[in-house]
Amino acid sequence: MNKFIRVNMTTKKAKFEDVPNKYKMLGGRGLTSNIINDEVKPTCHPLGKNNKIVLAPGLLSGTSAPNSGRLSVGAKSPLTGGIKESNTGGTFSQQMARLGIKAIIIEGMPKDDKFYVIRIDKDDVIIEEAPEEALNGCGNYEAVKILNKKYGDKAGMALIGPAGEYRLPSANIAFKDPESNLRAAGRGGLGAVLGSKRVKAIVIDDTDAGRVPIADPDKFREASRVFSKALLEHPVSGESLAEYGTDVLVNIINEAGGFPSYNFTKGRIEHADNISGETLSATIKERKGEGMVSHACHRGCVIRCSQWYADEEGKYITSGFEYETIWGLGADAGIEDLDAIASIDRAMDDVGVDSIEVAVAIATAMDGGLIPWGDGKAALEIVKQMAKPTPMARIIAGGCAIVGKLCGLFRVPVVKDQAIPAYDPRPIKGIGLTYATTPMGADHTAGYCVSGNILKVGADIDPLKKEGQIEYSRAMQIGTAAVDSTGMCLFVYFGIADNPDGYQAMINMINAQYGLSLTAEDIDKLGEDVLKVEREFNRKAGFSNAHDRLPEFMEYEPLPPHNVVWDFTPEEIDEVFNF
Amino acid sequence: MNKFIRVNMTTKKAKFEDVPNKYKMLGGRGLTSNIINDEVKPTCHPLGKNNKIVLAPGLLSGTSAPNSGRLSVGAKSPLTGGIKESNTGGTFSQQMARLGIKAIIIEGMPKDDKFYVIRIDKDDVIIEEAPEEALNGCGNYEAVKILNKKYGDKAGMALIGPAGEYRLPSANIAFKDPESNLRAAGRGGLGAVLGSKRVKAIVIDDTDAGRVPIADPDKFREASRVFSKALLEHPVSGESLAEYGTDVLVNIINEAGGFPSYNFTKGRIEHADNISGETLSATIKERKGEGMVSHACHRGCVIRCSQWYADEEGKYITSGFEYETIWGLGADAGIEDLDAIASIDRAMDDVGVDSIEVAVAIATAMDGGLIPWGDGKAALEIVKQMAKPTPMARIIAGGCAIVGKLCGLFRVPVVKDQAIPAYDPRPIKGIGLTYATTPMGADHTAGYCVSGNILKVGADIDPLKKEGQIEYSRAMQIGTAAVDSTGMCLFVYFGIADNPDGYQAMINMINAQYGLSLTAEDIDKLGEDVLKVEREFNRKAGFSNAHDRLPEFMEYEPLPPHNVVWDFTPEEIDEVFNF
Repeated sequence: MNKFIRVNMTTKKAKFEDVPNKYKMLGGRGLTSNIINDEVKPTCHPLGKNNKIVLAPGLLSGTSAPNSGRLSVGAKSPLTGGIKESNTGGTFSQQMARLGIKAIIIEGMPKDDKFYVIRIDKDDVIIEEAPEEALNGCGNYEAVKILNKKYGDKAGMALIGPAGEYRLPSANIAFKDPESNLRAAGRGGLGAVLGSKRVKAIVIDDTDAGRVPIADPDKFREASRVFSKALLEHPVSGESLAEYGTDVLVNIINEAGGFPSYNFTKGRIEHADNISGETLSATIKERKGEGMVSHACHRGCVIRCSQWYADEEGKYITSGFEYETIWGLGADAGIEDLDAIASIDRAMDDVGVDSIEVAVAIATAMDGGLIPWGDGKAALEIVKQMAKPTPMARIIAGGCAIVGKLCGLFRVPVVKDQAIPAYDPRPIKGIGLTYATTPMGADHTAGYCVSGNILKVGADIDPLKKEGQIEYSRAMQIGTAAVDSTGMCLFVYFGIADNPDGYQAMINMINAQYGLSLTAEDIDKLGEDVLKVEREFNRKAGFSNAHDRLPEFMEYEPLPPHNVVWDFTPEEIDEVFNF
Repeated sequence: MNKFIRVNMTTKKAKFEDVPNKYKMLGGRGLTSNIINDEVKPTCHPLGKNNKIVLAPGLLSGTSAPNSGRLSVGAKSPLTGGIKESNTGGTFSQQMARLGIKAIIIEGMPKDDKFYVIRIDKDDVIIEEAPEEALNGCGNYEAVKILNKKYGDKAGMALIGPAGEYRLPSANIAFKDPESNLRAAGRGGLGAVLGSKRVKAIVIDDTDAGRVPIADPDKFREASRVFSKALLEHPVSGESLAEYGTDVLVNIINEAGGFPSYNFTKGRIEHADNISGETLSATIKERKGEGMVSHACHRGCVIRCSQWYADEEGKYITSGFEYETIWGLGADAGIEDLDAIASIDRAMDDVGVDSIEVAVAIATAMDGGLIPWGDGKAALEIVKQMAKPTPMARIIAGGCAIVGKLCGLFRVPVVKDQAIPAYDPRPIKGIGLTYATTPMGADHTAGYCVSGNILKVGADIDPLKKEGQIEYSRAMQIGTAAVDSTGMCLFVYFGIADNPDGYQAMINMINAQYGLSLTAEDIDKLGEDVLKVEREFNRKAGFSNAHDRLPEFMEYEPLPPHNVVWDFTPEEIDEVFNF
């Protein structure tokens, strides 16, 4: 990967650029965060012409390394006001990498109000008007069909739905997966940034692209084999995730009493069976048709955690149907029916909004009296309205923090205005430290301490106690920032956390590809540097330690069944980033 | 004034307290800001049990000093997230002072969801359930009648409208004026704080209150005479404000090209005559009936800037009908009809929302396509809906920043999430520095540099140039913080800015009342200390210099007719608070 594509939407011109030396050994999140920090004015308006949006494959993307096809998307977030990296599957990352494109940087803003498609191939970047029929309320599923017809099924695709066109705060960026279904860079409203630049879609055609060059192919092949084995040998990444999807967590987290329900007033629900991964998997199998247990969001994934959920007639409804979404609608909003949840998930993907932010916003709106508790029909109707947003649809698409303000609530589960997902910090204290301190706003993927707290992978820490959590969240955030720079899916953690061979194999792949001799310390250093850069941006944007706090209600509302509160002091929390 | 009243809404108990020594020479804003900084956890949720709300008369309130009947209300603001002092007329301040109550501090939060009235008299504080018929959508005008019937016409009254009950971010606190019409502590959503504590109203009965003790009555009387003369001799405070109200500014600011219109895209409008103070005054006179040119919002006011606006049948519509509100609806939202504007102003008072925040939110919503430009009927309908808020009413009552987010706009005229009022910072640079740096969020009353920039009172600074503005905004903010601590109306500035006798008379009154010998330097020091305390609170709450910035669009969208942008550098802006 030896070039940048820089697209200026003010002039509607694009150019290829050489990659500056300082960026050469960065990829994924490391690259997006550094470019944003170097090039974007931290106090700029996220939807103004001075924000930029950057797409970057990871260091290993495009190779045969297992699970290396993730893409990082970075910008100043309209939701949090801070730096954002949002991570997605799909085919885009590998196609960029094969074309040798290390990053796409989109800047400026047209003066007109048309929407555009940026079309990239081996030789050229073309900016052309988006097809009218894909706009103005057209959902993502239909838009993909329209764009596929024009640009070919095999082209990679990033696109925004109506929510992105309207620049709503929870708008995501959708990405085509190998079957032209949808994955998303969901969090932080990056779809609104793309919408503000009037980019409806980025289409990437890797016809005639070469292979990604590998300095030492034999060493790479061997490391890749070891790595793959490590992933498949672990019971979580080798078995549970394929069989039950991420939704396997419903019973585990509910059992642990850390399953925030009814807007974070309870930690365990009675109806977990209705929405569990076991039920999900059994339902898919029973219904047959287009349903599919275990599917990969990108080529080369050996974990295959995605589940295709079908309706009673066996017709495909949704995939990438994740635990956090099912939790948000099923427990936090109390919608007890998996079919209803699946329909809402599909509708969220279709209008193009983050299914965590919107699910939590719906639950908060239920607490605020805007929607009846557990009313899946009402929730579905509101999400569908986001295609041509009614006032209520705007409120919910505004995200949890805005819903909280417009309902006058103090029980508003956000950090840095981003909704807290699926794991309650009171009885799972490690994840609370991550939520509080990550530069991303509440984000479970930024340092998944649920692992050592509950799953007992990589560590064994009492989730109800403070001991060891600060160091653990710090290490997890550093490690994650590094992994997010490789293009690896976060679930590789299961293959490397307790398996030194797996971990070494990952490093060996990087070394073999680039002809380097990095050590584990170098990888840690990479992670630390990424976090420092992100935190530096946030400081300049106006964040201070006072923003590294969980919502205050968690300090005085005990969560049943453990009846515990959040009890880290500000000083203790601030220790997480003391490195 | 020798006691505090502390009301705990969790226990529904109240007590009288002695005033700690360190607070004895503080009043008004100086007192509310110090108590908030000392007692409120800066990172608390503004609508949670740990926020407090403080009401304090000024040092001179309750005496015969002209224009000394203003009240300060302080809390952590749900709108800005920072410290807030909001200032109001009405009878409340003088009644508190006569009862010797230096501050009312309301803390805690009931577990039930009833609303309460806090009733204060000479001997007692009683917390009782609010009358049902004054709740659930009952407007402030009607609620005052209901409460008057129960507590007597002469009782002072602070109350929240439906917007406060719903804890909407722009909810204000209304105060009865001498005729049982409404004044308001408008800005920063303090009505939502009172609503969160389930306080519908505070009623104060000063029957049998003594006089405020004066250490040297003769000296006080003489100083008061000189001060009054200074106010009446100045053409603005002695004449224009009485004749045309604050709306006299329409023609002046429009002529200066600093009259932000159509969501801050133009600096001058064609239809200024429709909404000017001259037209306002002539219309009131022509219609006769209950209309009244020149009325006082509190006893002892010699400026009498309030205008009672009546409809075509001569029936009272609204008073306290200010320039900033008329600007917001008339120019920023382009509603060209003064009757329509008056009806909306009345409706805002009636549901209990800040008429600046909501007017600007309406204009921003028009830019965002939610309401047709200039449609007064639609705006009125939405404001009325705030009594039982529809989703659209919630959005608009959410204030300008939220409207901007839900419309995906970058042209969002706020600082610290509070709407910018009535004077465009691009061609009136001094006020821009105040908007950017005051701890209050965009607030023209925090350092009214329009005075020296446009009115040429107190200074003569070219509004289009940067020279002298930093020092001027600093001095004005310091002076204002001091005046806000005296209970004096800000318009006394016209009597003291260019008149050393007037200024000395104000100091003499304080000295005569308290038996002190303060100098002008002491008064400056008081102002400086207040600002430092406020800034300290905001720092701890998470604000940094990055928040002392105007909205970015002002840096690159030139404002006609002068076609100038905002061009102070961050470093220059930060100099304002370098003292």
